Amino acid sequence: MKKLLLSGAYSPIPTPFDTRGAVAHDKLAENIDRWSKTSLAGLLVLGSNGEFTYLSDEEKIEVLKTAYQAIPKDKLFIAGTGCDSTRATLELTEQAAAIGADSAMVITPSYYPSKMDGQAMLRHYLELAERSPLPILLYNMPANTGVDLSAETVVELSQHPNIVGIKDSSGNVVKLGEIIRAVSPAFNVLAGSASFLYPAIVLGAVGGIMALANIAPEQCYRIYQYTQEGRHEEARQLQLKMIPANRAVTARFGVPGLKLALDWIGYYGGPPRSPLGSLNKAQQAALRATLTEGGILQASAR
Amino acid sequence: MKKLLLSGAYSPIPTPFDTRGAVAHDKLAENIDRWSKTSLAGLLVLGSNGEFTYLSDEEKIEVLKTAYQAIPKDKLFIAGTGCDSTRATLELTEQAAAIGADSAMVITPSYYPSKMDGQAMLRHYLELAERSPLPILLYNMPANTGVDLSAETVVELSQHPNIVGIKDSSGNVVKLGEIIRAVSPAFNVLAGSASFLYPAIVLGAVGGIMALANIAPEQCYRIYQYTQEGRHEEARQLQLKMIPANRAVTARFGVPGLKLALDWIGYYGGPPRSPLGSLNKAQQAALRATLTEGGILQASAR
Amino acid sequence: MKKLLLSGAYSPIPTPFDTRGAVAHDKLAENIDRWSKTSLAGLLVLGSNGEFTYLSDEEKIEVLKTAYQAIPKDKLFIAGTGCDSTRATLELTEQAAAIGADSAMVITPSYYPSKMDGQAMLRHYLELAERSPLPILLYNMPANTGVDLSAETVVELSQHPNIVGIKDSSGNVVKLGEIIRAVSPAFNVLAGSASFLYPAIVLGAVGGIMALANIAPEQCYRIYQYTQEGRHEEARQLQLKMIPANRAVTARFGVPGLKLALDWIGYYGGPPRSPLGSLNKAQQAALRATLTEGGILQASAR
Amino acid sequence: MKKLLLSGAYSPIPTPFDTRGAVAHDKLAENIDRWSKTSLAGLLVLGSNGEFTYLSDEEKIEVLKTAYQAIPKDKLFIAGTGCDSTRATLELTEQAAAIGADSAMVITPSYYPSKMDGQAMLRHYLELAERSPLPILLYNMPANTGVDLSAETVVELSQHPNIVGIKDSSGNVVKLGEIIRAVSPAFNVLAGSASFLYPAIVLGAVGGIMALANIAPEQCYRIYQYTQEGRHEEARQLQLKMIPANRAVTARFGVPGLKLALDWIGYYGGPPRSPLGSLNKAQQAALRATLTEGGILQASAR
Repeated sequence: MKKLLLSGAYSPIPTPFDTRGAVAHDKLAENIDRWSKTSLAGLLVLGSNGEFTYLSDEEKIEVLKTAYQAIPKDKLFIAGTGCDSTRATLELTEQAAAIGADSAMVITPSYYPSKMDGQAMLRHYLELAERSPLPILLYNMPANTGVDLSAETVVELSQHPNIVGIKDSSGNVVKLGEIIRAVSPAFNVLAGSASFLYPAIVLGAVGGIMALANIAPEQCYRIYQYTQEGRHEEARQLQLKMIPANRAVTARFGVPGLKLALDWIGYYGGPPRSPLGSLNKAQQAALRATLTEGGILQASAR
Repeated sequence: MKKLLLSGAYSPIPTPFDTRGAVAHDKLAENIDRWSKTSLAGLLVLGSNGEFTYLSDEEKIEVLKTAYQAIPKDKLFIAGTGCDSTRATLELTEQAAAIGADSAMVITPSYYPSKMDGQAMLRHYLELAERSPLPILLYNMPANTGVDLSAETVVELSQHPNIVGIKDSSGNVVKLGEIIRAVSPAFNVLAGSASFLYPAIVLGAVGGIMALANIAPEQCYRIYQYTQEGRHEEARQLQLKMIPANRAVTARFGVPGLKLALDWIGYYGGPPRSPLGSLNKAQQAALRATLTEGGILQASAR
Repeated sequence: MKKLLLSGAYSPIPTPFDTRGAVAHDKLAENIDRWSKTSLAGLLVLGSNGEFTYLSDEEKIEVLKTAYQAIPKDKLFIAGTGCDSTRATLELTEQAAAIGADSAMVITPSYYPSKMDGQAMLRHYLELAERSPLPILLYNMPANTGVDLSAETVVELSQHPNIVGIKDSSGNVVKLGEIIRAVSPAFNVLAGSASFLYPAIVLGAVGGIMALANIAPEQCYRIYQYTQEGRHEEARQLQLKMIPANRAVTARFGVPGLKLALDWIGYYGGPPRSPLGSLNKAQQAALRATLTEGGILQASAR
Repeated sequence: MKKLLLSGAYSPIPTPFDTRGAVAHDKLAENIDRWSKTSLAGLLVLGSNGEFTYLSDEEKIEVLKTAYQAIPKDKLFIAGTGCDSTRATLELTEQAAAIGADSAMVITPSYYPSKMDGQAMLRHYLELAERSPLPILLYNMPANTGVDLSAETVVELSQHPNIVGIKDSSGNVVKLGEIIRAVSPAFNVLAGSASFLYPAIVLGAVGGIMALANIAPEQCYRIYQYTQEGRHEEARQLQLKMIPANRAVTARFGVPGLKLALDWIGYYGGPPRSPLGSLNKAQQAALRATLTEGGILQASAR
């Protein structure tokens, strides 16, 4: 039996840093408070938007502790616990469980990419699934990792009772279809980006974990909700409208763009850690124009 | 004003060769007769499935002539006229017009890929559009060409009155969305593969030109038709069911697989030209099993 | 027995077009006259720098005829005869033989790249080698084709008596080493770019076929000659000096850059065919500066 | 003034684990003792072959401490201190300095690869160089990271007095040439693999840091030494002979292959950490045959 139903819209939250680069735990808690009042079904802490690879082992634990305190019980708390080795991933997953997370999202290991084949993935995830106290959510993010989980591997992994779903950020809806047709309905397929949320849901995805949900949680939720209700034209229109804003806070301007957008809408964004850099003036103007056009910023705010 | 509405399902037909490797014009005409009795809205001659890069300049003309004779007037006749140079493409397009084609589909030029940037694409397609007697359909097929038309370039090209649409085989529905939100409704966006026909249509595509339509024209048409009628669950089920069969005659076994499948269902498939090779026994068995499971071959035929 | 020794420096010559885009046969002959007075060991006609994919079947024949007339008997005449299909390649190779070429250089077929595996390459080249009246030179150019011949395949092909060598433009000297250690000494390994001519020769390559040799034939020859004579420091210095000029007429500015450089040094360059475009002012200035720094243009010419 | 001359052959040593997966500090010290009696100029600890991404922050410190104790003063001790963030890299570099390392090798950060452009690299390495107590060695390893430092960026970074060289594992000798021609002679260019050591040195590299040096230190040293002495034919022959063995312990069988080879020659190799897996029987036999052919294992050992 799968332990979790992951339907709805989730935000992969950024990790806020203060001006000296330390984790700003108070800002993290305040941000979570605000997201908790939205229609989001839960929060992912320490995902790609959380700059998880930029945190020390110790900082990760502290961030998870703060998040646990701040996330209300009616919202799902998913912890990103993927490390390059199975050993480190298991250790962090156990700590996340002790802290109180509901699920562990585990990105594909990716160093030595030519060796990260189907066999290595099965080795990694099955050992983890056997020993993890938390239900495991696969995380496929080829644009960042250079590793792409095959449909065949996902289907095989889906048969383990402690592997409950996948966040796939590849945008490959054909692969989503291949997975959905072959897995049990209890296996949660989630869009990893708002840019293909609507087509993913019509194919059978149950929701999405999406950078855009940090700054446009209600719009992301509505794409989901409209589709559930069969209001396809409204879903389609909103999906098309959101594409540029989504792209602005992902591929185009990345985490620095997302953090700046958060600052603009009243959350705390703050600086990213180096080597990520802040947006220059021209990029800031482009981001503002795009978010205004998408209805996320007020036109008067220009 | 755009000259064409390209809604529905289209098949990119193979070019049949006899056992000595020459074009089998009689088989081509017979095959076209059969496709013409299906629900397909038209045929694409000399696309990727037509092994167009394997034909001499002269053979291409002869194939287009035979096709013109065989295709009834109520079916659209799209000719693949893309060559690596603008000059050769224009020449073949003029010949296709003289023969009687309704539209010319033009694949992205792809030699010197590092030079085939947005500027080169604008130069190629705009010069062509200016001078072509036929309305132009863009053809984006990065898996074969290594060149990927950007949404931005497509949108700019869509503004020319003689560029009437795009067949996009990339499977990138986010890009389809970016295009659809920005172009005029008269610009025809077509899925280039049956593997993402349903999600493409829900986003606003008007149909598809799909290898699978050669062997499963009615199923492809029904995915289109169900979606038009708002019968989403039926469309979704059929879409998911068709994915393995589609993959078998495209990425997995390619043109040789498609031709063998045609032989099995009573059309003429015949051999591909070298360096493409025929399927070995194990591949044949896998193809047969997949097509049977997809309902394209009868189970008793095993 | 291999039929050819291909040591020395060769130039892959451009195909000159007049201002209306037709092949300028008189300019072609004049250019060949000039190259024939240099230290080059021979010329390659209809290679990548010859825009071979931009010529019609008929134009290719005419270009080869003009070249045959112009190339003196003491220079090797290599004809690029690769087409996407084995059938077309064989036909063009037979025509090149009838015209009088000494060898046929055959680029890897590259459409349907996922199907162009080792088996397809063996099928293509072995059928060709069996039937070709000319000795075959393999041509590996992954940057343009997306297909990369493996060392294993090259070694297997090298065992056919009618396959006499390879021009490898990948710049992968490790693969060159793998090939050289495994093939018979009679198999000619040639650098496909002047950018790695010296390291290729120290590993055992017998020479190079290089865009740069069109505008700097003596410098290319001297890198070869110095290495033969054990004058390593001179070879090294000249190799390092030539890298920017080489890059300027290949990866950076491509065939349009090469043609413009030819115009500047007194050959006929002329325009490329579209979709290749001419250099803008800034690119022209950068090209001129680089060629001047490399000693190919006089500083006073600025 | 650059602080270091890095000529000669270096080995990037593996991190030994015991059967329960913990770091085997005694085995690490014993291995280092043995390498210290060879002609190697120094050791790199915590490189790609050291599975550095698989160690916790704390384990890295402990490994560096053990290495410092074991490495004699006449061998250079290079510590791999690269992390994804500048902050974490600086912290580990400071700890490596406190422990006693001679230099810090810093791999390119690679998460968010589309954002890891030249600007991000300058930001990362220049901040580090300003503040690091140790001289910095750049480490370019695109096969593992998906990020490739451009020649232009390397040349710009080379101008900082605290950036003393680069280990480039790309195998791109053209880029090596571009770097060598533009940097000061005090900037150390090192081959990152034994597969192209000889061509790299003839172009001006001062040595190499190479997986193969772990199991064939004298052969790697001799390729270097022969070239220094102008004994080119001997260098060439040895280079060609070593290519298959090198490939076996890098691209082909990776760290697991290297560790097994160490076990065979009397060092401690031991298991890799998961998701890396051990070699199966067929792979073991292939590795043994290759190492025997390369003269690294005795034929009688089969």
